[in-house]
Amino acid sequence: MALSTEFTELFGVEHPIALAPMGGSAGGALTAAVSRGGGLGLLGSGNGDPDWLARELPVLAAESAGKPWGIGFLTWAIDEAVVAWALELRPAAMMLSFGDPGRFTERVHDSGTALILQVTDLEEARRAVDLGADVIVAQGTEAGGHGARHGRSTLPFVPVVVDLVAPVPVLAAGGIADGRGVAAALALGAAGAVLGTRFQATAEALVDPATAKAIIEGRGEDTERNRVLDIARDSPWPARYTARTLAHPFLDAWRDREDELAADPNARQAYRDAVAQGTIPALPQWAGEAIDLIDDLPSAADLVAALAARAEAALARVAGH
Amino acid sequence: MALSTEFTELFGVEHPIALAPMGGSAGGALTAAVSRGGGLGLLGSGNGDPDWLARELPVLAAESAGKPWGIGFLTWAIDEAVVAWALELRPAAMMLSFGDPGRFTERVHDSGTALILQVTDLEEARRAVDLGADVIVAQGTEAGGHGARHGRSTLPFVPVVVDLVAPVPVLAAGGIADGRGVAAALALGAAGAVLGTRFQATAEALVDPATAKAIIEGRGEDTERNRVLDIARDSPWPARYTARTLAHPFLDAWRDREDELAADPNARQAYRDAVAQGTIPALPQWAGEAIDLIDDLPSAADLVAALAARAEAALARVAGH
Repeated sequence: MALSTEFTELFGVEHPIALAPMGGSAGGALTAAVSRGGGLGLLGSGNGDPDWLARELPVLAAESAGKPWGIGFLTWAIDEAVVAWALELRPAAMMLSFGDPGRFTERVHDSGTALILQVTDLEEARRAVDLGADVIVAQGTEAGGHGARHGRSTLPFVPVVVDLVAPVPVLAAGGIADGRGVAAALALGAAGAVLGTRFQATAEALVDPATAKAIIEGRGEDTERNRVLDIARDSPWPARYTARTLAHPFLDAWRDREDELAADPNARQAYRDAVAQGTIPALPQWAGEAIDLIDDLPSAADLVAALAARAEAALARVAGH
Repeated sequence: MALSTEFTELFGVEHPIALAPMGGSAGGALTAAVSRGGGLGLLGSGNGDPDWLARELPVLAAESAGKPWGIGFLTWAIDEAVVAWALELRPAAMMLSFGDPGRFTERVHDSGTALILQVTDLEEARRAVDLGADVIVAQGTEAGGHGARHGRSTLPFVPVVVDLVAPVPVLAAGGIADGRGVAAALALGAAGAVLGTRFQATAEALVDPATAKAIIEGRGEDTERNRVLDIARDSPWPARYTARTLAHPFLDAWRDREDELAADPNARQAYRDAVAQGTIPALPQWAGEAIDLIDDLPSAADLVAALAARAEAALARVAGH
């Protein structure tokens, strides 16, 4: 048995598993590895930084072995020129997350690239249907990194989105880090799962080894969602998005005092100084609530196959008990 | 195919579905209906109020048709005498939630009644194993009504508990309101699902019709978890538990100002006055995040069978696509 879904059929991939296009860390090697493993790799282009893309795209081209891959952007951070440029690369999919994608979607449709829109509430889900999304990602608040401040939990959110947007296929994102989570996503009616943090702890991810280690050792209850570290580092992320991260000295110092931190340039300078001195990590350690389930650092291609096999086993166990 | 699990085998029930023992609203008729439908009904005895039990137990006895049923208590609210008295009823199961159950468990073991312990974090899960739980319920923060202030989300929490407590069977609770959610719980490795809010919207639940209507019409994003209404009504619930409820005028007035409300006797008197005048409901409208999936008011016995059939269909769809 293979876990064939509308998603695997649409992209001609083997497994209903996609890489979350995590800005900066889902680079060419990781994207290519996920696609080689039979999933859909999505390059984490963030705001479309040309230098980063100039470095990562050749790696992706060299290592993707002709398998389909896509590219992801932060909708609030890009302009039409970046989208037009990226579509010339002829990706199988373009995924747009966080912000209204209205001004980009017609261009994507015209190109023949599949449009994947990530949503965090029902209003965004309705809008994604209106904009002609080919695939909709329903992201729950368990996800690592950025998401909606007033987000929904994946388990109750996914089936509601599935019903609302049918027949558009839905992928579940947030809180999924093993084969059982992939199987649960399918049981909820999703056509696949998007995994982020699980792929951070792989040989190919562009992450500080200390962060990979922290993910492997951490527990879900050690993660929390807020804006403290975005404010501390003067990040341009809009205020309606929080980020789920692991513990951090600045979190302990400024938890529940975001407005105060935003108004305190000295505190933010102290953050920059601490980064420069190496006493805190250069970036927040973004991690999802499912990190309890992550305890190794495999190659991402092997991981995709293992996740799919374990999802199949989980479903077979339920059916065959 | 029937969804046979360690849970259905342990209790000799047909479906891997249990009724959350919701204090006050999971009365004799609802408990009996869930058991007649092939699930495990659990009477919502709360603090063991003798008057309530004197009214509900005869209904349960009359309507349970010889099917197994259990009884649930709030651990922080009871004493040994209540437990001893309840065990004499010879329930199939006793479920203890919220608080350390250590002083009760030996008595339950000695009685032959199965011990079900509900947990909200990994420390409680470890403790439940040490106390010899026969079944462990892993409750996520999506659940309606009371739960841990710093709770976990069901999707990433359940598989971690399953791994931690194996071979003790685990039930998933929180955010499950349809067959797909039951199927997802099984895929995550649980031996069944505990549903609360879904059973509030049934013919047999002891709820104000206005609350059942609000559940049917409400959406997950309209629910929120905090202590405001517990403080307003001078509830004895310990401060480490919040409750997920639907919108309420007092929530709008006192959100994020719990300490202030606790220190303001006039505001709490105003709450009591408004209840007396009927301008606000007599009780908070406890509801879980999955209420988007609830749109009818069936009989609970029919509902159990429908949930099981839809869970089987969801799993068959995944396997057979």
